[in-house]
Amino acid sequence: MEQVTKFKEMLMKQKAYGYVLNVTGWDSNTEAPRGAFARRAEMLGVISGELFQLQTSKEYQDVVYGLFKKLDKLDDITQRQIKKAKKDLDKMIKIPQDEFIEFNKLINLSQLVWQDAKKNNDYDSFKGNLEKIVEFTKRFIKYFEIDDLPYNILLDEFEEGMSMKEYDAFFNIIKRDLVPFVKEVLNSGKTLNDAFITDTYDAETQKKFADYLIDVVAFNRDNGLMKESVHPFTWNTHSGDVRFTTRYLENYMFSSIFAAIHELGHATYEQQIDPKWDNTNLNGGTSMGIHESQSRFYENIIGRSIEFWEVHYPKLVELFPEQLKEVSLDDFYRGVNKVEASFVRVEADELTYSMHIMLRYEIERMLISDEITVEELPKVWNEKMVEYLGIEPKNDTEGVLQDVHWSYGMIGYFPTYALGSAYAAQFYYTMQKEMNIEELVKGNEIKTINNWLKEKIHNFGSSKTPKELLLEVTGEEFDAKYYVKYLKEKYTKLYL
Amino acid sequence: MEQVTKFKEMLMKQKAYGYVLNVTGWDSNTEAPRGAFARRAEMLGVISGELFQLQTSKEYQDVVYGLFKKLDKLDDITQRQIKKAKKDLDKMIKIPQDEFIEFNKLINLSQLVWQDAKKNNDYDSFKGNLEKIVEFTKRFIKYFEIDDLPYNILLDEFEEGMSMKEYDAFFNIIKRDLVPFVKEVLNSGKTLNDAFITDTYDAETQKKFADYLIDVVAFNRDNGLMKESVHPFTWNTHSGDVRFTTRYLENYMFSSIFAAIHELGHATYEQQIDPKWDNTNLNGGTSMGIHESQSRFYENIIGRSIEFWEVHYPKLVELFPEQLKEVSLDDFYRGVNKVEASFVRVEADELTYSMHIMLRYEIERMLISDEITVEELPKVWNEKMVEYLGIEPKNDTEGVLQDVHWSYGMIGYFPTYALGSAYAAQFYYTMQKEMNIEELVKGNEIKTINNWLKEKIHNFGSSKTPKELLLEVTGEEFDAKYYVKYLKEKYTKLYL
Repeated sequence: MEQVTKFKEMLMKQKAYGYVLNVTGWDSNTEAPRGAFARRAEMLGVISGELFQLQTSKEYQDVVYGLFKKLDKLDDITQRQIKKAKKDLDKMIKIPQDEFIEFNKLINLSQLVWQDAKKNNDYDSFKGNLEKIVEFTKRFIKYFEIDDLPYNILLDEFEEGMSMKEYDAFFNIIKRDLVPFVKEVLNSGKTLNDAFITDTYDAETQKKFADYLIDVVAFNRDNGLMKESVHPFTWNTHSGDVRFTTRYLENYMFSSIFAAIHELGHATYEQQIDPKWDNTNLNGGTSMGIHESQSRFYENIIGRSIEFWEVHYPKLVELFPEQLKEVSLDDFYRGVNKVEASFVRVEADELTYSMHIMLRYEIERMLISDEITVEELPKVWNEKMVEYLGIEPKNDTEGVLQDVHWSYGMIGYFPTYALGSAYAAQFYYTMQKEMNIEELVKGNEIKTINNWLKEKIHNFGSSKTPKELLLEVTGEEFDAKYYVKYLKEKYTKLYL
Repeated sequence: MEQVTKFKEMLMKQKAYGYVLNVTGWDSNTEAPRGAFARRAEMLGVISGELFQLQTSKEYQDVVYGLFKKLDKLDDITQRQIKKAKKDLDKMIKIPQDEFIEFNKLINLSQLVWQDAKKNNDYDSFKGNLEKIVEFTKRFIKYFEIDDLPYNILLDEFEEGMSMKEYDAFFNIIKRDLVPFVKEVLNSGKTLNDAFITDTYDAETQKKFADYLIDVVAFNRDNGLMKESVHPFTWNTHSGDVRFTTRYLENYMFSSIFAAIHELGHATYEQQIDPKWDNTNLNGGTSMGIHESQSRFYENIIGRSIEFWEVHYPKLVELFPEQLKEVSLDDFYRGVNKVEASFVRVEADELTYSMHIMLRYEIERMLISDEITVEELPKVWNEKMVEYLGIEPKNDTEGVLQDVHWSYGMIGYFPTYALGSAYAAQFYYTMQKEMNIEELVKGNEIKTINNWLKEKIHNFGSSKTPKELLLEVTGEEFDAKYYVKYLKEKYTKLYL
């Protein structure tokens, strides 16, 4: 079909623009000097503008909407491509361009306002921006003309097919089964020999260990690399070029180790995607939640297991003999899995993590449904912290102001973090039916685990939705019980 | 004038494309993993194609040729811009597109053929490619319809305003005054305490010294950075983002030091260009020769002076106490300026360097004038090595096959290297009338030298031709006598 060929050609051209913007973004985030940015903004403005023209051109619209009308005549893969292209197009053309520009200006500005507000513990100075962001978001949702509740539309944007119905079910299980368990653990009175955690570990040596981890996870060095940045992240153009960063804090070595393993999870996903998707719009991981399930799987299920450290702790001791000479493997393992009620999400441990997400989900839900106002956020935030973790933030900096997401206009994103952990647990129990993960980790054979994930999940890129993947891989719909089971089994042994 | 505005807008758009290609190039040359390149070639093919369309569009041609016809109605700066744009355009549109594509394929292939030929000392396997490259080059020259000798057209391409007339005068002086002097030095029988040169120096510590040199040269760290690559180079997008690389050979520390200072010369030039040229086509250094004059000035005149090492040798000794404990400052200084008849241009010392270039100039000249054939190159090469340096290459790998340039189709480029050194000497004697360079270097006040160069040379970007610059800065046309004078003064003291 001629239209399909035309669609592919137009997509290919858009991809080339995306490619150079992406490479420039990597440079911006990992090494470009301060002096680069003013001119860079000007130059990228031109290229992004050109890309926007291509993505919204009359010609492209005709092709996409034209094919969308004849969906049933297309093969499955092309159908999924056209659906995705149509969804993206809708979002781009339904918002009036002047409002879109105004919104972009607002969020660019809001990030700076948020930074200052966080630094100065001054929620009032950010409130006005957040109000505007929420207003814009609600207005934009209307333009999409989708017959659903506003927050559902946002949730679906970050995790296809998820709505309040599913998330409510998820968090109700968390609330019912996990919240009491977390309190039990926090009140267990268990003390750890954990002073080593905040000992001093020099960055260069930490780097050697992070480099060692690359091979432990069997990351393909010909198709990627590790670098350093303030906020760890994974970046990729296609399976042949997947990069990730970690960071080295001399007084908190865990940061570099677990950021590296976490990002190696994301990176392994991207490295294992079949290149046949490269020239389609079904390339890359399928969703935020599935991506996060992979990073959490490597970071927590593998990287915080006793078997992992049985094999790799000796290497760490070899690198830091002074700091670790009196730290037993058991001490170390318990340190790695230390549970604490803490204020800041990004520093939260595996067990309490979902409490932080549940709180954000509930707040966003109420905010978008007009049940609470932006004004009331700090109060609601702090009440929920007390409810779920038994602690109350002393200020907004470690409370409602801690995360950057809302200042970027990202509302509906947070829930995918907890979802990822829960997906990971569900995948874990499926895998266990076919292999002994603990034995493989202990035998330093993570490659075998990678292969399984490749075959069942990674290979498919975005050609399957999260829901399809979950059903096909595990034989079930998403079920939070696995997540609760996994956490209870692990932390009962550690704490109770 | 409406046409001028249109020209500027079109140029700005082209620059944005050039910008992202440039950033991607930096990534390719400094860190992209092997797996990146196949897809990268595909994606950049699209973007380069788009840029080519813009650069050769009917609309752009109309504007440029239109304005060229009304040159006298434009201000000086716009005139220079239009002349430059017209020259670039001529080159791009006068060559038939199929031949241009064929030529690009040929040179892509030839680089691989050359690599193998060099590795296997097999000139015959490269000869055919080189013949084709020479044929294409001659044919392309005809398309330009410039009323001049073919080699002059090539020379002008790499150094505006230079022709065989000027280069002949230059190299005649070298031949008359420098060749005998070089022989005298080589036969002086002077022995050096120079075993330290090839001692082992660990890369990490070398890196610390290179980093120290950044501040010695007063490079602006907010507007650039240093990185590592196999072949050192300088890269920039505008004065706010100037980067350079060096390399660390553990058995030849001089490589990292002098590559760093050399590139810092190029980088300082680019950092000191007035940003007002950014959106014109008069940005960046004005020519290969002037650029090389700056790198050679920093590397040789500053970096290989006794005053430089009086201040900075203690730092190096501090970093390498074991290796340098019995090496006096005088030993070190003489080591840095060691003269040897050597086969390989890139390893040649300051004094013998121009011999290598003269040889290449004469060979290219004869080749393009059909006085010799590609077949005869190795023979002619070796004869000239004996004539100028008294040594004969044992094989073509260290003879005619050593340089990559010809396989890239770059004929007429080599002479700018020697020209740069000679320009540097002429600038040096002018500067000495206004300041005492040696005192400044000794006082660690290179910033003052930078300022002079900024005011007289760097600031202007490409808005002045090399000839204009030289005349305005030194009050004279180019004269090789300064170069000979500088070398004779320095090496008489060291060797005779």
